[in-house]
Amino acid sequence: MKPVEGRKRVIIEKVQPQVDCGRYPAKRVLGDAVTITAAVFGDGHDHVSGRLLYRHSSETDWHSTPLTALTNDLWKATFTADKLGDWLYTIEGWVDHFDTWCADLRKRLAAQPTPDKPNASAESQDIPLALRTGALLLSQAAHRAKAPDSKLLAEAAAELNRLADEQRTTYEFPLNDKIIALVEEHPDLTFATRYLQELHLWVDRERARYSTWYELFPRSTSPDPTRHGTFSDVKALLPSIAAMGFDVLYLPPIHPIGNAFRKGRNNSVTSTPDDPGSPWAIGSKEGGHKSINPQLGTLRDFDALVAATHDHGMELALDIAIQCSPDHPWVAEHPDWFVIRPDGSIQYAENPPKKYQDIYPLNFESPDWRGLWEALRDVFTYWIRRNVRIFRVDNPHTKAIPFWEWCIAEIHKKYPDVILLAEAFTRPHVMYSLAKAGFTQSYTYFTWRNTRDEIQEYFEEITKPPISDFFRPNLWPNTPDILHATLQNGGRPAFMQRLILAATLGANYGIYGPAFELCENVPAKPGSEEYLNSEKYEIRRWDRSASHSLAPLITQINQIRRNNPALQSDGSLHFHPADNPNIICYSKSSGPNKILVAVNLDPTQEQAGWIDLDLKQLAIPHNENFEIEDLLTGAHYTWHDRSNYVSLKPDLMPAHIFRLVRPSTGETTLNAAVTEPEAK
Amino acid sequence: MKPVEGRKRVIIEKVQPQVDCGRYPAKRVLGDAVTITAAVFGDGHDHVSGRLLYRHSSETDWHSTPLTALTNDLWKATFTADKLGDWLYTIEGWVDHFDTWCADLRKRLAAQPTPDKPNASAESQDIPLALRTGALLLSQAAHRAKAPDSKLLAEAAAELNRLADEQRTTYEFPLNDKIIALVEEHPDLTFATRYLQELHLWVDRERARYSTWYELFPRSTSPDPTRHGTFSDVKALLPSIAAMGFDVLYLPPIHPIGNAFRKGRNNSVTSTPDDPGSPWAIGSKEGGHKSINPQLGTLRDFDALVAATHDHGMELALDIAIQCSPDHPWVAEHPDWFVIRPDGSIQYAENPPKKYQDIYPLNFESPDWRGLWEALRDVFTYWIRRNVRIFRVDNPHTKAIPFWEWCIAEIHKKYPDVILLAEAFTRPHVMYSLAKAGFTQSYTYFTWRNTRDEIQEYFEEITKPPISDFFRPNLWPNTPDILHATLQNGGRPAFMQRLILAATLGANYGIYGPAFELCENVPAKPGSEEYLNSEKYEIRRWDRSASHSLAPLITQINQIRRNNPALQSDGSLHFHPADNPNIICYSKSSGPNKILVAVNLDPTQEQAGWIDLDLKQLAIPHNENFEIEDLLTGAHYTWHDRSNYVSLKPDLMPAHIFRLVRPSTGETTLNAAVTEPEAK
Repeated sequence: MKPVEGRKRVIIEKVQPQVDCGRYPAKRVLGDAVTITAAVFGDGHDHVSGRLLYRHSSETDWHSTPLTALTNDLWKATFTADKLGDWLYTIEGWVDHFDTWCADLRKRLAAQPTPDKPNASAESQDIPLALRTGALLLSQAAHRAKAPDSKLLAEAAAELNRLADEQRTTYEFPLNDKIIALVEEHPDLTFATRYLQELHLWVDRERARYSTWYELFPRSTSPDPTRHGTFSDVKALLPSIAAMGFDVLYLPPIHPIGNAFRKGRNNSVTSTPDDPGSPWAIGSKEGGHKSINPQLGTLRDFDALVAATHDHGMELALDIAIQCSPDHPWVAEHPDWFVIRPDGSIQYAENPPKKYQDIYPLNFESPDWRGLWEALRDVFTYWIRRNVRIFRVDNPHTKAIPFWEWCIAEIHKKYPDVILLAEAFTRPHVMYSLAKAGFTQSYTYFTWRNTRDEIQEYFEEITKPPISDFFRPNLWPNTPDILHATLQNGGRPAFMQRLILAATLGANYGIYGPAFELCENVPAKPGSEEYLNSEKYEIRRWDRSASHSLAPLITQINQIRRNNPALQSDGSLHFHPADNPNIICYSKSSGPNKILVAVNLDPTQEQAGWIDLDLKQLAIPHNENFEIEDLLTGAHYTWHDRSNYVSLKPDLMPAHIFRLVRPSTGETTLNAAVTEPEAK
Repeated sequence: MKPVEGRKRVIIEKVQPQVDCGRYPAKRVLGDAVTITAAVFGDGHDHVSGRLLYRHSSETDWHSTPLTALTNDLWKATFTADKLGDWLYTIEGWVDHFDTWCADLRKRLAAQPTPDKPNASAESQDIPLALRTGALLLSQAAHRAKAPDSKLLAEAAAELNRLADEQRTTYEFPLNDKIIALVEEHPDLTFATRYLQELHLWVDRERARYSTWYELFPRSTSPDPTRHGTFSDVKALLPSIAAMGFDVLYLPPIHPIGNAFRKGRNNSVTSTPDDPGSPWAIGSKEGGHKSINPQLGTLRDFDALVAATHDHGMELALDIAIQCSPDHPWVAEHPDWFVIRPDGSIQYAENPPKKYQDIYPLNFESPDWRGLWEALRDVFTYWIRRNVRIFRVDNPHTKAIPFWEWCIAEIHKKYPDVILLAEAFTRPHVMYSLAKAGFTQSYTYFTWRNTRDEIQEYFEEITKPPISDFFRPNLWPNTPDILHATLQNGGRPAFMQRLILAATLGANYGIYGPAFELCENVPAKPGSEEYLNSEKYEIRRWDRSASHSLAPLITQINQIRRNNPALQSDGSLHFHPADNPNIICYSKSSGPNKILVAVNLDPTQEQAGWIDLDLKQLAIPHNENFEIEDLLTGAHYTWHDRSNYVSLKPDLMPAHIFRLVRPSTGETTLNAAVTEPEAK
């Protein structure tokens, strides 16, 4: 079947970014310069032109900006995402007869008679006729334009016809830049091709790209060891947490904890009346996902904590875990939201032979799935209305992915500033699928990527398109569920290494706080990644003033992140080879701000080696000196060309975080320091 | 907005093959085992199952075949494309509660009491309850099945309930394979997800994948040097062309040639009455694209030639060049199909300052584009009705690409066996776009890829997905337009090298015949790729019996191609490193048939070196002997492990074409021959 208009000769392909053929939006943050690229071409030798059309979904008219040519039929254009939420973009391309004519005329003019080629003539090159063709194109442009442009274009057309009438021996190019620009402003779109899709772009606020998380259990924050911690106790800690440089304070679930099958210390199946239970066993007669565990305080106390967090330049993040204790009100009110077993009982969480009788999963194949979806969305909107704008979602990969796509769209429709972090540790397709469904940030495999090759391969995948167009890593060296063997065995140096890696590889990172800063490293049992005396099942007391605390280093690193825009995004991450496999080296940059990090991955001993810098990546000229500053020590060094030496003692400081100061002036080459191979 | 059914929990992504998000069909040939892969996964730990749905477009019901799991949520299924034309395929996936239940039950059974764990019990593992759940799943399957299956399933369900009633201390797995298979045959598709698209696959006949082309100018085939060659003269040559092993005989345009501005010898702008003109300047008062140049014969002679070609096991390919001489009947009948200049004249072909006054291009922005499209399609169908099924299309990239997509679809609707070769030498996006629009085969950059790196990089691109899913290379070492410097300067050895490369790198290849086999290598002028005394503008006489003719080598190579299925497709092409950059080494395989080619790319002198074989690719065990046969000489060699030596004299024979005979028995290791490094 013929198309409606067969004269649209331009083909548009490969519009990027594009996630799963446009099935999901690409993601950017507010203020980003969004560059769209596409292949735009036609048949034959005619020139093509094109434009990017873009608009915020709240607007009805497109904005447009011309495409500029890259190589080999690829084009690009950029717009600024200056509003949160859903944007649309597409590409238009057309055969540009005027531009073709200009190029063609220039070739004819160049072939006119010269002293060398006296036989050539303007007439032999059909120049007068070409001028009349140009006059026609200009009059058409005049008809598309409005006054005063239309008048200028009509005059230019008349002038071309006059020139043609003169039948000169030689001609010069007859149009000035202004007229050319005017025609380009009024292109002939009659046969313009529009790309077959309008693609979506989701724009988050900046914290989606750059955030620093601190997790703590409120119940462990009481200064009085005989008392359950409260929101007020958390409030008292805010100055010290803010001082460390965190901007997101994340609390495990704050809801009433079930009594039925409550877990005791160290995940024991029996509990004593003193055991507080797991905060993830949500719901009791005191309420469910919209209620607060009375031991933590009141709703008013919660509101006060939210406000105080903001006062300290931070935000509070809540943990939403979609599961119920057997005491949760929904169990009685909506038994059809759960799986009913043949004996009429409700199916508890189970991974045979393991049983989790204190937890009932929700059934996403419930006949009342619509009611369930709405109730779950209402949990989010309830806390959003209490000024919470960041959520960490527990195990989202065990809930139906189509639910998340709907739920997050519902939330974002009204609250585009909401950030959701997916706590999914599962297979890659499922991880990525949650990010496509709308999660703003995602936990990663970072925790289990410890060797240089592992780190490098993984981060090259997740920080570059296509993955980085929809997936934003948030790196955690530990969580209440995960104490990796590296930390168990590597002591304080391992904590320093993993902290620096997380904070510099990832613009988004977080720590499960007191356990991390105090280098807590005893597992529940050998081979386990669970903590001994895990805070998940009991109240812990932390000596935050202990001399081995990493708080000073954390403070310093978070300050370095704040001062250096290079560390506030991930797209520029670039690895540089080092001859010692225990040393990993990478850079990040943001405009002139360039950071180079070298980390000794061995917590047991000093490692040294030669780094082979990719100078082009760092905009350092070849064979010249350049100055770097170690932001951890304040020391300045002069390095030379690509090959430079580092040596790192893990107990002292397992890393350099260099800022490139400037290319050295060259005067320092007179100084012996330049041949000094050792940077420390 | 909620989906219609929120309980469809399975996500389907990355269905392959898929060309431009399904905008264009992928291509295969008749009889191919078509493997479709996809990522299919759901939330949580439930097992998923899936199936491939496929049908020929002439069928209304889907065929289906179960997906089998690869790694990491990827799945595959295969069907045989046993009919030409348009096929559709898509993927369905669902949470498989029965399969999940089986796995779950096996884990419960494994945790039953044993001498080691006397405290465990069937009851503690909820086994009776699990059996009742299984009974429920089996009854549901019974309802989906028909007799006698439904009866068997219902009985199995009842048996599970009976077992549950027994409350045994220990249980065994209660279902046999037959019942499990029965449930799988009747899956619960209530909440199955269907992939969002039905993708298209175009199935060509086998010659689309494997063909051997010979181009000649009929007018140069007369044995009488005073006479214009005719179709009858061509007929007389058929036995010798068929004997060389060609299966496509391709003729430049056979239509009446224009008289206005007819080109003389060597593209001269003036011609004498004796000059026959360029066959691409189509149309005169004797007719246009549906007429035959009377000097070649009559329509009846043409029909006879087509029939005779078939009798010799070959096919005739016509050249369709969409352009007109000023004498073409369309110029008077349809002036609106051309570009009219401001002075009322018709625009001839021009690339300023070059002019081609003997040719008028068609205007694809004609107001009567519909009429033009139909007329052009009718040119193809006219010759199709005269039993031509292969067309070489001249410069398709200077005609609107949407026209080709429509025109080829129109042709293929009725004649799915038609093969179209795109003679486009232009930018990559345009080349690929024509292939996507429907061209069966494409000319390539092979002619300009002469060094090892150039060849390797280019063929790794065009013989692998995504490109190979829609683009089929047809390699030409020369054409009437292109005499590459390699052939101009390299003499007969260069012709041998380029012939062997074309015939073994590409399952589809062709030569511009007599000029190639007779090693014609004089350019029109230094630096030009045009032939001196080009056959495009004059009648040539060829001494086909000359002693330097490459006909014997061509015959041998085409026979090798015919005997070895490995050389009849391109997907298995694999390059093996060699330490001498003048030696290129690659293999192709088809089942047990494995061919290894080594070519000396230097036409001037002997080159030798060590090849580093990828043994896995060739299914050769490590550290063992294996036997190879050089199909060009018949010599057998025993090689050992991955590192082997070759030495190639370009004047003698610049290549080995080895067939892997079999892994050596090991007995020959006693023989000194195995340590012989030189294969020749």
